[in-house]
Amino acid sequence: MSMDRLLEGIAAKQNPTVAGLDPKLAYIPEYILKESFEKYGETLEGAADALLVYNKGLIDALCDIVPAVKPQAAYYEMYGWQGVKALAETIAYARAKGMYVITDGKRNDIGATMQAYASAHLGVTEVCGKNLSAFDADALTVNGYLGSDGIEPLLSVCAKGDKGIFVLVKTSNPSSGELQDRQLATGETVYQLMGGNCETWGEKLPGKFGYSGVGAVVGATYPAQLDELRKTLPHTFFLVPGYGAQGGGADDVAPAFDDNGLGAVVNSSRGILCAWQKEKCDGGEYAAAARREAIRMRDEIVARIGEIKLPN
Amino acid sequence: MSMDRLLEGIAAKQNPTVAGLDPKLAYIPEYILKESFEKYGETLEGAADALLVYNKGLIDALCDIVPAVKPQAAYYEMYGWQGVKALAETIAYARAKGMYVITDGKRNDIGATMQAYASAHLGVTEVCGKNLSAFDADALTVNGYLGSDGIEPLLSVCAKGDKGIFVLVKTSNPSSGELQDRQLATGETVYQLMGGNCETWGEKLPGKFGYSGVGAVVGATYPAQLDELRKTLPHTFFLVPGYGAQGGGADDVAPAFDDNGLGAVVNSSRGILCAWQKEKCDGGEYAAAARREAIRMRDEIVARIGEIKLPN
Repeated sequence: MSMDRLLEGIAAKQNPTVAGLDPKLAYIPEYILKESFEKYGETLEGAADALLVYNKGLIDALCDIVPAVKPQAAYYEMYGWQGVKALAETIAYARAKGMYVITDGKRNDIGATMQAYASAHLGVTEVCGKNLSAFDADALTVNGYLGSDGIEPLLSVCAKGDKGIFVLVKTSNPSSGELQDRQLATGETVYQLMGGNCETWGEKLPGKFGYSGVGAVVGATYPAQLDELRKTLPHTFFLVPGYGAQGGGADDVAPAFDDNGLGAVVNSSRGILCAWQKEKCDGGEYAAAARREAIRMRDEIVARIGEIKLPN
Repeated sequence: MSMDRLLEGIAAKQNPTVAGLDPKLAYIPEYILKESFEKYGETLEGAADALLVYNKGLIDALCDIVPAVKPQAAYYEMYGWQGVKALAETIAYARAKGMYVITDGKRNDIGATMQAYASAHLGVTEVCGKNLSAFDADALTVNGYLGSDGIEPLLSVCAKGDKGIFVLVKTSNPSSGELQDRQLATGETVYQLMGGNCETWGEKLPGKFGYSGVGAVVGATYPAQLDELRKTLPHTFFLVPGYGAQGGGADDVAPAFDDNGLGAVVNSSRGILCAWQKEKCDGGEYAAAARREAIRMRDEIVARIGEIKLPN
C-alpha cells in the first residue's frame, strides 16, 4: 500500500516531515523571477515558470533528507492552467527524485465525479485505449462531507495503483471547530465521526506497518485532539499541518506519534519556503536556507520522539 | 451582487436551469474525436481539444435559451493541465456568449489558501502589478467543512468582483446523509447547521431580489429537505443537482422554488450531454439534440412552477 512507501521513506531518512510546496511570487528570489518574466513576459506563464524553477531548486536541496513534498493545488490554480501545468511538472520532478508526493487538493464530490478526480490525481485516464497519467501523485487530500460514496472510487484507484488518501478530520485553522467540534446526538463529535470513517475506509487498504492507505489530516494547532485521535485511530496515519508559521511546535506534534516514532508526517510550508527571507540571506541561497530549516525541523521533532522504527 | 445576474438571466429566459458541462469522451461524437486526435494525437491534448470543441457546440446551441452552464472541474482535471486549459477556455467562451458560469469545484481550505482559490476561480491574480484572470467564473461551488475562515476570503472577492458561491449543504448522492443528516446535540442536523451558515455568510453579500451571493447546493434527490430548506433559508439561492440521470423529476425540484418561481437553478448534465445518444440520432446532431432536451426540461419545470417574476 502506498502509505507503506511513505513510512519507509520516513524511516530511511529518520525524518517524519513533509515540505509544503505552496509557492507565492513573494517567496521567490528576484533572479528567478527576472529570468522567467524575460522568457515568458509578465504573464501567468511567466509566473508559472518561476514557480517551477523555484520548486525544482527546493526539491534538489531537500530530496536526500526529506521524504515527501506536499504541493497545495490552490497556489498553482491561481496562475491558471499555466500554474496547473507547473503543478504537474513539480509532481513529476519530485517523484523522479524519489520523493513521495501528496497533492493537497481537498477534493470531494459524488461517486461518479470522484472517480474522475481519482483518475486525475492518483490514477490514469483512458484515451483511445491507452492509460495516460494526468497528475499522478502518490496521495491526495480529500474532504469527506459527502460520505462514503464520495470516497470509495478513491479506494479502488489506491488499491490498483499503490496510492493513498488523507481525509480531513480536524483541520488546523481557527474556525475548524465550527462544524468539526460539534457534538452529535450520539455523543461523539463530527471530527470523531470522520476519524472513525477513516478507520472503516482504511480496512480496504491495509498496510504492512499497521497503518492503512487512508490517512487523516489533523492539525498541530489542536494537540489535545491530536493526542486523542492517535489513541482512538490506531490504523490511521496522520498528515499534520499547522507546524511553524501557523503556531504549532515539536511539543504540539509529539502526540501524533506512536511508540515507534511513526504515525504522522508533519508539514511545514512557509517555514521552509521563506527560510532565506527569515535568515535575511541572499536569494541565491534560498535552497540552502530551506535545507537548513528542514534539518532544524527534523532534528527538533526527532529529538522529541526518538528513533523511528518500522515494526516487523 | 453576482447572484442577481443569474436571477436576471433566469427571468429573461424564463428558464431556471443550468447545463452541466461534465464531458466524457464517450459522449462526444466520433467526427469531433477524429479531428482532435488527428490534430494532436491520441494524447491528453487531443482529448482536451475534443472536450472544448464539443462544449463550444453545446454552448452555441444553448446560449439563447439556457441562462447558465456548470462545468465540473473533475472532468477536466482528469485530462491533466491540458484538460484544465479546456476548462478555462470553456468558461471564457460561455461568458462571451452571455452565459453565467458556475465552476463546480467544491473547493475548500484554510483561510490563506482559500484566498488563493478565490483568486484562481473568481478573482484576479497579481503578477508584476497587473491583475490577471486565471479561470474567472461567475460562481464557484465550495465545501464548508473547515468553517467560516475558509469561506470569508471568498466573500470579499465576491463583493469586489460581483461573483457568488454555492456551499454544499445537502448533496444529491446516496450517502450524503452519513454526515449531513446526523443530528447534533442541539437538535439540528449537520445540513441544517450548514444551511444556517449560508444565511449568515450571505448577510455580507445581499442581493436586490432577496437572495444573497451565498447560495447552497441541495440535491433534487431529497425533495423533503429541499422543501424544508426553502422555507428556513429565505435569502439563500439553491443550486439543485440530481435532476434527470440521478433520478429527480419536476415534482422533486418544485419545492425549491418560491412564489415568484425563483429560488433555485436546476442542473442537468448527462440528460443534456447525452441527448443525441438517447435519441439515437446522428452525432452531427448532438447540439440540436441537447437543445431539444434543454427545452423539454425547461418546459417541464416551468409548467410546474409557473411564470418566473423578479420582485421589485
